[in-house]
Amino acid sequence: MTRPSSVLPTDQPFPPARGDLAAGPYVARTVAALRRLRATTPLVQCLTNAVVTNVTANALLALGAAPAMVDVPGEAGPFAAAASGVLVNLGTPHDAQRAAMREAATSASEQGTPWVLDPVAVGSLPVRTRLAAELVALRPTVVRGNASEVLALAGAGAGGRGVDATASVDEARAAARALAGRTGGVVAVSGPVDVVTDGERVVRVANGHELLTRVTGGGCALGAVVAAFAAVEEDPLVATVAAVVAYTVAAEVAAERSVGPGSFAVHLLDALAALDEPTLVRRAAVA
Amino acid sequence: MTRPSSVLPTDQPFPPARGDLAAGPYVARTVAALRRLRATTPLVQCLTNAVVTNVTANALLALGAAPAMVDVPGEAGPFAAAASGVLVNLGTPHDAQRAAMREAATSASEQGTPWVLDPVAVGSLPVRTRLAAELVALRPTVVRGNASEVLALAGAGAGGRGVDATASVDEARAAARALAGRTGGVVAVSGPVDVVTDGERVVRVANGHELLTRVTGGGCALGAVVAAFAAVEEDPLVATVAAVVAYTVAAEVAAERSVGPGSFAVHLLDALAALDEPTLVRRAAVA
Amino acid sequence: MTRPSSVLPTDQPFPPARGDLAAGPYVARTVAALRRLRATTPLVQCLTNAVVTNVTANALLALGAAPAMVDVPGEAGPFAAAASGVLVNLGTPHDAQRAAMREAATSASEQGTPWVLDPVAVGSLPVRTRLAAELVALRPTVVRGNASEVLALAGAGAGGRGVDATASVDEARAAARALAGRTGGVVAVSGPVDVVTDGERVVRVANGHELLTRVTGGGCALGAVVAAFAAVEEDPLVATVAAVVAYTVAAEVAAERSVGPGSFAVHLLDALAALDEPTLVRRAAVA
Repeated sequence: MTRPSSVLPTDQPFPPARGDLAAGPYVARTVAALRRLRATTPLVQCLTNAVVTNVTANALLALGAAPAMVDVPGEAGPFAAAASGVLVNLGTPHDAQRAAMREAATSASEQGTPWVLDPVAVGSLPVRTRLAAELVALRPTVVRGNASEVLALAGAGAGGRGVDATASVDEARAAARALAGRTGGVVAVSGPVDVVTDGERVVRVANGHELLTRVTGGGCALGAVVAAFAAVEEDPLVATVAAVVAYTVAAEVAAERSVGPGSFAVHLLDALAALDEPTLVRRAAVA
Repeated sequence: MTRPSSVLPTDQPFPPARGDLAAGPYVARTVAALRRLRATTPLVQCLTNAVVTNVTANALLALGAAPAMVDVPGEAGPFAAAASGVLVNLGTPHDAQRAAMREAATSASEQGTPWVLDPVAVGSLPVRTRLAAELVALRPTVVRGNASEVLALAGAGAGGRGVDATASVDEARAAARALAGRTGGVVAVSGPVDVVTDGERVVRVANGHELLTRVTGGGCALGAVVAAFAAVEEDPLVATVAAVVAYTVAAEVAAERSVGPGSFAVHLLDALAALDEPTLVRRAAVA
Repeated sequence: MTRPSSVLPTDQPFPPARGDLAAGPYVARTVAALRRLRATTPLVQCLTNAVVTNVTANALLALGAAPAMVDVPGEAGPFAAAASGVLVNLGTPHDAQRAAMREAATSASEQGTPWVLDPVAVGSLPVRTRLAAELVALRPTVVRGNASEVLALAGAGAGGRGVDATASVDEARAAARALAGRTGGVVAVSGPVDVVTDGERVVRVANGHELLTRVTGGGCALGAVVAAFAAVEEDPLVATVAAVVAYTVAAEVAAERSVGPGSFAVHLLDALAALDEPTLVRRAAVA
């Protein structure tokens, strides 16, 4: 296991001992953000792909947020101005949805609504790759993808095959920092260890379970969860780390109860709904 | 707990003692309608939103109906003429689907196919609000929504935030009666206590569980179930009450077996499939 | 129980004794194909209907393949040239998706990517019936449907009501052979006993469970599984038989653990992920 790079805010061993609150302020701030999320029920607008729209809405509901899948042109823009957070996921970007995504991203950026871009399979597929370039120019609060997608978006790779990550998270770290520098926001790279950076700070989260990659929407729903946390935590880096920690800790709990991917998807929703502060503190592996 | 208003067909206390068949004819007619539904497998055409299409089809199948998600222009109209019942749900009304909805509603109205309008998030969002006004003019057999949506549709409110109900069911009762007067049909308002009215009769159902609001599609699938019951019961008020009772009683059974929203969604389908007459009679709380 | 027709490759009784490897080479080749599938993770492009897209992706992931729901015009064609297999399912064929389907099927045919056509509800609905005729002319590697759909596609019937099978599998056998003769590929007819033919050979599979018809996507997901097997087994007839055997054996295992359709859908994914060679050999009923 490699040591954290010098840009990490602390220099303790990685992964840190679980339950080590001294590992940094992130665990305590995750706990506080989850409490605010459940107290305020942020309204999260999702413009997302047809495959995961159900599980995305259910993950938000389970956690304590309110989903609204408003992705029709003429509605998406006004709604994004009033929503607590917005997710734009490029998984199945049909023509009308692309128009709605431009509307929503423009409106969110203008009105200061935090918004998350999930550039699914960008790089290898032309329609979404062009759209992603437009959306990056609108400066998303957070970009969340796998290593291949982040590399492609940063101009450093040709993308993966579909939604798979074929580049390693480590390869993507430099690209993530460069991309964050361009957007002025946060970039999160999913993988066995998740990396979150705002171009300066780099945080790593070592929670999660392989079963998250064996159900569709495992990563896409996280994008919506990031938008929910960004609605209740002003620092987008902290919000993104909190979302990753909460979601991947719930995935660990779910995996322990599961026989396979079918039961895991069920237990993940139950675990998100039941996620409590002792579990977060005990399991969080963040540095 | 308030007493039922004078328009109630009976004046027993509300909620009635469970299992009290003397509470009115509704429980017995629910039992009979469910029996007919399972004997005849009504074909229910659904034009519904992308988030809930899967759970809607599965709820119909579990109960004993046959779903058909025919929402393409050029097919939707002819199919509605032949279907046993039709659901039009405005949750994600993309352009082509809007055209298909007009087709289906027009065809259903002309041919006498019972059809249900679920005006998701109407009031606050312009595209669907205009469409809902058009569809109401085609006189849906049943309108099913939450209090905010029914208020908005009746012209008495500005709608909720997305699919949430921010107005109370009691506030919506007058609006529901007015709307039913305009459509000549039935209006059902979902809430902790569901209210069903045809403008004259007002029936209340006190079954259900809070977990129905923690999974997406909890209400939307009910719209399809109403269409299925309307296909096998001539009195639309009785059909709507039967659908609400059957669906929310199944939800109670499911909730008792569930750890959280993930397992609830699974148990709800199992409970709909296993719903039997003693359970209906024992649990129904309708007056 | 009727005896197999003389075109069967063997003349043992049908259904064969389970676990009877002498029943033919199909069980051994199913085992080998599943092993290759898991070793190589074929990338299966799905252009499928909105109702089942989630369960289809999850079935592929559970089995060991990689789904990619690329159905946008401008992306679908190039992707089909590079994918390991392609599914085209006509369940909800909106305008843009129809264009993407033409692209993908043309590209797959030109580049030699195996592709599967699932002609959902063809015959009774005009838009998809016209499209299906175009796609059949592009010579799909495999056509998978129920008896009504295969009859309609072969020009021998008017189709069923929605996705229901109203014609028997036996009625459809002659139509299947005629259709296979026209496409030069394989035709699979789902039913209590599945029939697979390439116009010469006819194979029957007697596995499965009635619960497969009580969840939406039970048949549609099989279409994607056929595409995955066709990516790792050169003989399309063997690939199709292997897919049907693997999927319907997993369904049997799942059904034994299920209370109703909700739990069945969960256990089916778990069973696909856990499907092992002894279970396949012990349960397969193919001749």
